This record gives sequence, C-alpha cells and structure tokens, in this order.
Amino acid sequence: MDPVYLDHNATTPVAPAVRDAMLPWLGEAFGNPASAHAPGRAAAAALARARAEVAALVGAEPDEVVFTSGGTESDNLAVLGTQLPRPRIVASAVEHPAVEAALVVRERQGVAVERLAVDRDARVELERAAATLRVPAGLLTVMLAQNETGTIEPVAQLAALARAAAPDVIVHCDAAQAVGKHAVDMRALGVDLLTIVGHKFYAPAGIGALVVRRGTPLAATNYGGGQQRGLRSGTEPVALAVALGAACRLAASDLEQESARQRALRERLWQQLRDGIDGIVRTAADAPTLPGTLHVRVPGREGAAILAAAPAVAASTGSACHAGDGGHGVVTGVLAAMGVPLVEATGALRLSLGRSTIAADIDRAAAALVAACRSVPRH
Amino acid sequence: MDPVYLDHNATTPVAPAVRDAMLPWLGEAFGNPASAHAPGRAAAAALARARAEVAALVGAEPDEVVFTSGGTESDNLAVLGTQLPRPRIVASAVEHPAVEAALVVRERQGVAVERLAVDRDARVELERAAATLRVPAGLLTVMLAQNETGTIEPVAQLAALARAAAPDVIVHCDAAQAVGKHAVDMRALGVDLLTIVGHKFYAPAGIGALVVRRGTPLAATNYGGGQQRGLRSGTEPVALAVALGAACRLAASDLEQESARQRALRERLWQQLRDGIDGIVRTAADAPTLPGTLHVRVPGREGAAILAAAPAVAASTGSACHAGDGGHGVVTGVLAAMGVPLVEATGALRLSLGRSTIAADIDRAAAALVAACRSVPRH
Repeated sequence: MDPVYLDHNATTPVAPAVRDAMLPWLGEAFGNPASAHAPGRAAAAALARARAEVAALVGAEPDEVVFTSGGTESDNLAVLGTQLPRPRIVASAVEHPAVEAALVVRERQGVAVERLAVDRDARVELERAAATLRVPAGLLTVMLAQNETGTIEPVAQLAALARAAAPDVIVHCDAAQAVGKHAVDMRALGVDLLTIVGHKFYAPAGIGALVVRRGTPLAATNYGGGQQRGLRSGTEPVALAVALGAACRLAASDLEQESARQRALRERLWQQLRDGIDGIVRTAADAPTLPGTLHVRVPGREGAAILAAAPAVAASTGSACHAGDGGHGVVTGVLAAMGVPLVEATGALRLSLGRSTIAADIDRAAAALVAACRSVPRH
Repeated sequence: MDPVYLDHNATTPVAPAVRDAMLPWLGEAFGNPASAHAPGRAAAAALARARAEVAALVGAEPDEVVFTSGGTESDNLAVLGTQLPRPRIVASAVEHPAVEAALVVRERQGVAVERLAVDRDARVELERAAATLRVPAGLLTVMLAQNETGTIEPVAQLAALARAAAPDVIVHCDAAQAVGKHAVDMRALGVDLLTIVGHKFYAPAGIGALVVRRGTPLAATNYGGGQQRGLRSGTEPVALAVALGAACRLAASDLEQESARQRALRERLWQQLRDGIDGIVRTAADAPTLPGTLHVRVPGREGAAILAAAPAVAASTGSACHAGDGGHGVVTGVLAAMGVPLVEATGALRLSLGRSTIAADIDRAAAALVAACRSVPRH
C-alpha cells in the first residue's frame, strides 16, 4: 500500500487535467514561439492563452506574466532585478530561502535589509511592522502563505503601510504556497510583483511565473535573446507554460469548494492527532492558514523519528526546499523566528493535504502517526 | 497538409521515447527529490538516473551534471559564474546571444573580452586565434556547432591553444546545437563547462544542463535552497530531467546512423535547390557542419519573402533565438562576422532537418522553395 502523501507543500502530483492540456505539446504540437511560420505561430498562440489563464487567476493582465523556471528564479528576479528607489528593503523574518538568500546578496551590495518579526503563529506583527515601515522602503517583500506553517501573512496591510510612507515602494509577494489554494488578487493585495510556482499546485516542477505589474521598474537578471519583453531571455517552454495555465484554470474552477473540503479534512486530522498524542501543539492555531496545511509539534520527541516510525505517511518535518536535509533533523529558522521552544521545535511535523487526499487517507495517516508517537522514545 | 518542418535548429518536437519516459512523472510518480520519504527517494533516484544518462552522452561523470532551465541559463552560469583566474575572456565572434549578452555584462564588470574572427564558413580562424590565445586567458568560450550555419568549430584545438598559454584557463563550450546530433566528448574536447539544451534534440523546452568538470571554479548565479551542490538552487524538475536523460539515451542509440541519414537527405535538398535556384550559394560548404543543417543564400532576394511565398515549408532566415523578430527581416551578426555581402545575406535561409524528416518532405520542400524563389521579385 502506498504511503498517504501529506507533503503537498513540498510538491504536488501533476493533475490529470494539467497533463491532458500539456500532452499535445509533448506530441504533434510544437514550435518555437519566436518563429514566424505556422508551427511557431501556433506555439505563440498557446503561450498567449497560458499567459491569460495565469493572469486571470491572480487579477493581473496577460502581458504582466513573465514565465520563469520556478519559485527560485521568480523570487531572485524580484529581489535582485528590482530597481530600488532607495537602498532599503523590508522583508518578513520567515521568507523562503529563495527570497532570503537573495536578500543576503542585496545586503552585500550595500542595501539595508530589515526583517519583520513574526508572532508565535508565524504571522508578521503588524504593530511592530508599522513602526519599521514608517521609514520609507525601496522594496517590501512578504510571502502570502508561510511554507512550513501555512500562515497567511497580512500582505495587503503591510503593502498599505509601506506605500503610505513611500508611494514609490515596490512590493513583492512570494505567493508560491498560496496560489491555487487561496484567493489571490494582486490589485487587492497592492503588490507589484507576485511569485507563482507550478509544482505547488499541480503543474510540473520547472515552470513558474513572476507577475510584474505594468510600470514596475524591473531589470532582467539573465541575458540572451531578449524574450518576454527583455525580462527573461530563453525560448519560452510552451508545454510547461500550457501546464501552468491549465493548473491556474483548474484552481479557478473550484477554489472555494476544494478549500472547504481540504479544511474539513485537516480538522479531522487535527482532532485525531489531538485525541491520540499527549501534549501535541497545533501551530498557527489562532491565525488564518492555508486550508490544507497542518503544522504540529510533539514536545519531547523528534519529528524525524516519528516520521521514520510511520512509513505509511509521507510528510516532512519542515520545508523540502533545503537541499539535502530532506526536511529532517533540523530546527527550522521559521520556528526559531516564532519563538518555539527547542523541545517543541524538534518535534515539528508538517502535514499538507491536497486534491487527492480523502477521508480514508486522513484516518490511516492519523492512526500511523499516533502509533508512531507512542513507539518513539522521548528524548 | 502540414508544412514540412525544416526548423529543427529552432526547436524540435518531443520524441515519442522521450514522452513515454516522462509520462509516469506527469502521473502517478512524483515527489520532491529533497524529501526523505518514499516518493521523495523515488524522485531522487529518477533524477540520478537522468544525470547518468546525460553524463554518458558527453563523456562526463553523473555528479558533473547541473540541470538548468535551458541554454540561456547554462550559458549565463558558465560565463558569469566562472571564477576567472584572470580578467580576460576570449570568445568566438559568432556565439549565441545567451553567451554574447553575458560577455557584455562581463565587459561592464571590467573584464577584457576578445572575439575570435571567423572565416567565410563561420569557422574560427585558427591561425589568428593562436595569436590571440598566446596571451593567457581566464575563460575561453566557443560554441561547438554554430546555430545558424551548422559549422563545427575547432573547439579542441582552441582549448589546447588556450591551455598551452594558461594551464588554469577555464574552457566553456556551448554545445546547444551539437549535443544529440554530433559526437561530443568533453574530455576529448578539453572543455570544463558544457551547455546542453533539451529542446534542440527532442526533449521539451525548459530543461537543459551545464556540465561542470570536477574542480572547475564556478559560483552559483542564483540563490535559494542550495540544491545541486549549491550550484543551482530550486527544486529539481524531475519530469524534465527524466526527459533530458531519455533524449540523451535516444541520441546515443543511433547517433551515427541518424547523422548519416540526415546528411544524405540534406545533400538531396541541396542538389534540388542548386539545380532549381539560379545563383544560390551554400554556406559553410567547405567546413564540417551539423548533418541536418543547410544554410543557403539566394542573392538579390529576401529570405523572408521566399519563406512567405513557400507556406509549405516551415523554416527560418536565421536564428529563432532572438525575441520577436521571428528570424525574419534582419541580417544576422553571424553572417556579418563571416563577411557575407549584404546582397546575399538578406537572402539567407536556414533549413534544418530532424529525426522525422523523410525524402518526400525534402522533395516537397525543395519544390516549394524553388517555386517561391521564382515568384519573389528581385530587390
């Protein structure tokens, strides 16, 4: 029997509808969208449709969508490509490594980077943020949903605070975990740059986008043929772009219903874990969260040991986006920023549901995790 | 009836064997290779197999393969990530824009960049190159096969010349057009960095590799989770890597036979064009070339007009790797570097064959092009 996959925040399977949309472009249909002949024009048209589908999901215009290879490239382009009106960047303290590592590059360039503290739910503390943002910033970058805890960050409020002090501030939002699972409207959020990652919502890995609001001062960070209005050189990957477009269409088709379904399953999972595991703590219990993410801490036990004792469950202790650690054996910077005590942080489990998760999976996973917690010694 | 596709140097269709290899990873199989659980380990294993397949085709070791999003990223990483032993770069005058544009960035950083002249076949002139390379270089970057003309460059000789003057020189070869069509052995070529592009040989667009010989001083140019030994952050795109591996396996399986087959078809095409079009000139007639590339010039006529008058043929006047120009309406820098007179350069046609090209296609394309040349007015 396959393990119950509760690691959708690490990566999702490709949805059948996405695969079906891609398949023609892995078969008879092909062409370089820069070519003037009929196959090239067909490729360009498919690319344009995909662009429109991506834009529609996030309240943007088609010509604002820049296809990239994924989240790292989109985040890097936003942080490093932005032409800062002033050398000051404000970020949350719990950004993804693709943002955080780029911020360190900016610091080395002499840009002042300030990180906004988060509360115990991993949510940026608005009052303290307001004080920090009273000083004009060049760039504000805050993720929409925290990848480990699922916490929804107050992006719209932070963007408004930043803009009140600096009307020309550029606002980037890494929406890698949110897009496809949570309603995203760039305009309503007040963001200029939005990161989208295909493999977090049922497109394959290797495709993403940075949505760039018209007029945002952004310079390319790669160099070549000048495709995508010069912002991202390289032959556009038509099959992948079509997949991303199809994933956006799929998400738009049932966002509310699927969110409600996953939220109910998550509560079912939490109830079984709470009833079965002494002292288990639910992370971000008092914050808005992604519907399918349940982050918990089992005090006095190692998360990695629990998962090793529960092979019927495929989940992680933290982010999968750190090379080599397999999400195991480390206390993540996110939990540290939240002030989670070490005795709890080492017992962290991230359980993330997806489209294919059903009630029977939840019951099987909960039983396996409860049994594993009982079998694993306290440390 | 579909047009005869003679633009394989722009992009290729995905081969059935490649698609079949990918399909499981667009369906039941998935997982983040950084995850410690069973699906993650399966993904990591598939990635390792793909790495070995890519390495095997080019005479490298699996751990030397860094997957990228394609040629632009690979070329940029090679040119911009190399830690130069000295601030001097030597390149051919006919590099792809993804190399050339990165060289311009290096020049702005204060690095001296010298470009090696080519002869009328687009081949680097060895005698003049020898003089240039007598002065120690930090990086030598020369493509293996010219993308417009198909000319095979004397990479091994140039690498040897560069190394004779500077044993620590780093040698990069953009083999985007060569891999899969021409035997490539990194060691025999004496190159440290090799660019591979999937969509030039029957994998989808959006995947490529930079092969980095062990010990080559290279720093990442993107920032994030530190995947791929820190050289390229971002979740590895397993389905795409599997596709690239399958494309390499396919190429290795019949490289010589398929080369011979395409070469014969190309000669058939040339004979019909030569017999039917007054004054037509074959480019790189005296140089080694890719087996499937035929570049010709029709003096006094516009290449774009010829192609517009021959909708039964999908081909180009130059590279498709320049955004927006559709390969039309410009005299390329490559032809200028070769010293092709303007009256001929404007009549350039690049006809590139592929695996699916058959004799009947050649005859139909030749007839259409001959008729088009007769119908298009001289300018």
